[in-house]
Amino acid sequence: MKQYKGYLIDLDGTMFRGEEPIVAAVEFIDMLNKKQLPYLFITNNSSKTQKEVSDKLNHLGIYSTPEHVVTTSIATAKYIKNKKQNANCYVIGETGINKALQEEGLETSSDREYDFVVVGIDRQINYEKYANACLAIQNGATFISTNSDVVIPDERGLLPGNGALTSVITVSTGQMPTFIGKPETVIMDEALSIINLSPEETLMVGDNYDTDILAGMNAGMDTLMAFTGVTTREQLSKKDRLPTHQVDNLSEWIERI
Amino acid sequence: MKQYKGYLIDLDGTMFRGEEPIVAAVEFIDMLNKKQLPYLFITNNSSKTQKEVSDKLNHLGIYSTPEHVVTTSIATAKYIKNKKQNANCYVIGETGINKALQEEGLETSSDREYDFVVVGIDRQINYEKYANACLAIQNGATFISTNSDVVIPDERGLLPGNGALTSVITVSTGQMPTFIGKPETVIMDEALSIINLSPEETLMVGDNYDTDILAGMNAGMDTLMAFTGVTTREQLSKKDRLPTHQVDNLSEWIERI
Repeated sequence: MKQYKGYLIDLDGTMFRGEEPIVAAVEFIDMLNKKQLPYLFITNNSSKTQKEVSDKLNHLGIYSTPEHVVTTSIATAKYIKNKKQNANCYVIGETGINKALQEEGLETSSDREYDFVVVGIDRQINYEKYANACLAIQNGATFISTNSDVVIPDERGLLPGNGALTSVITVSTGQMPTFIGKPETVIMDEALSIINLSPEETLMVGDNYDTDILAGMNAGMDTLMAFTGVTTREQLSKKDRLPTHQVDNLSEWIERI
Repeated sequence: MKQYKGYLIDLDGTMFRGEEPIVAAVEFIDMLNKKQLPYLFITNNSSKTQKEVSDKLNHLGIYSTPEHVVTTSIATAKYIKNKKQNANCYVIGETGINKALQEEGLETSSDREYDFVVVGIDRQINYEKYANACLAIQNGATFISTNSDVVIPDERGLLPGNGALTSVITVSTGQMPTFIGKPETVIMDEALSIINLSPEETLMVGDNYDTDILAGMNAGMDTLMAFTGVTTREQLSKKDRLPTHQVDNLSEWIERI
């Protein structure tokens, strides 16, 4: 059977659920470390910094450094910097995206025209932010959104995700954003570049067909679906294209590492 | 030539532009009053009360009482009351919609389950309001939006309209709202009921093809397009279905009253 040289791994529903670690996932990461196989965590959550995410993982008993974490904020900042050094960005979003843009030397100045409008989840969203974003796009700024997730699961139910918040600007300006996060390839290409492996050598692991598994497929990678989160076996059975591998939980994969 | 027994008339772009009255429109309303022909103003603006709108019209020299004004808020409140007396509504919106619901005896209590989620333009929109609306719809509330306008023209440019704000909830819940305002027929049916005339006897007057003229057509009315606002002659020439009548401005219509 094919041996993979590295792993890209989803977080929520794959490594933990809310504040609870998934036991099989902890064992899986321990085995990757034992076999000295490189891995990165890939998350569509733009609100947190790499350090905040790795702190949470370590707290849950899952070994991680900040460098193990690729957030959609990191991928967004690198994508924009690659398009234009020192680009001026109008930002809707929380700490993660603001810090990531700052670290790539991107500006957020109202004193000159904006090159990009960047939208990430923002629980402090208000009308003025939406108005400013729409006006910047009308004035020629390029429209970027960190991820298209329409809901955020919460103990109260399904709350609006960044894909839903972004739609105000899409509908009002008539312009579609470039999405960076899973299932798009921008974040996957960034992760493959960091792990320094080809798509063929790397396995994408996740619980959500529509984001994780499609992201892997779109990037030309093999995929491993774990039924520990969003997608059920029944839902998967209706899909045209199946993941390369399926497991009930990641302990089943340990012998394949 | 056909004589109309009553008129339904748009406001912004037809009677005034921002804070400036359109002179020809003032003369047009004067003639309706001279001939004692009934008329109503039909507006998709849900933020203002009938009195606030008529005060503005009088200030601009256009004769109006609060009863001359049919806002999408009034039409929304009557629509909901007709579906369920004392319905409990979760409301996103400004003074106009809140007052209209209150006057129809509709409740806005967080102490029991919501029957309806009502969304109107809200310049104080925030994440918690969106979250509450999505959760209420997940719990079975019916989703209503006062109007689908995607932009609000402003001196700074095109700001997000209620149709854009509403899309967060549409995208997040996967449910389409019932829209009340133009070009839908709910507001038109309400206005025809108030003016107590048949669609065939009544003329719909407006400057915006996609809202005013389509609303008239959808309600089975003849329509009069005035090129004093949004839609240009060139834009109109590309439409499949044309308004019954077209004028550069409403002074051209005065001899037809």
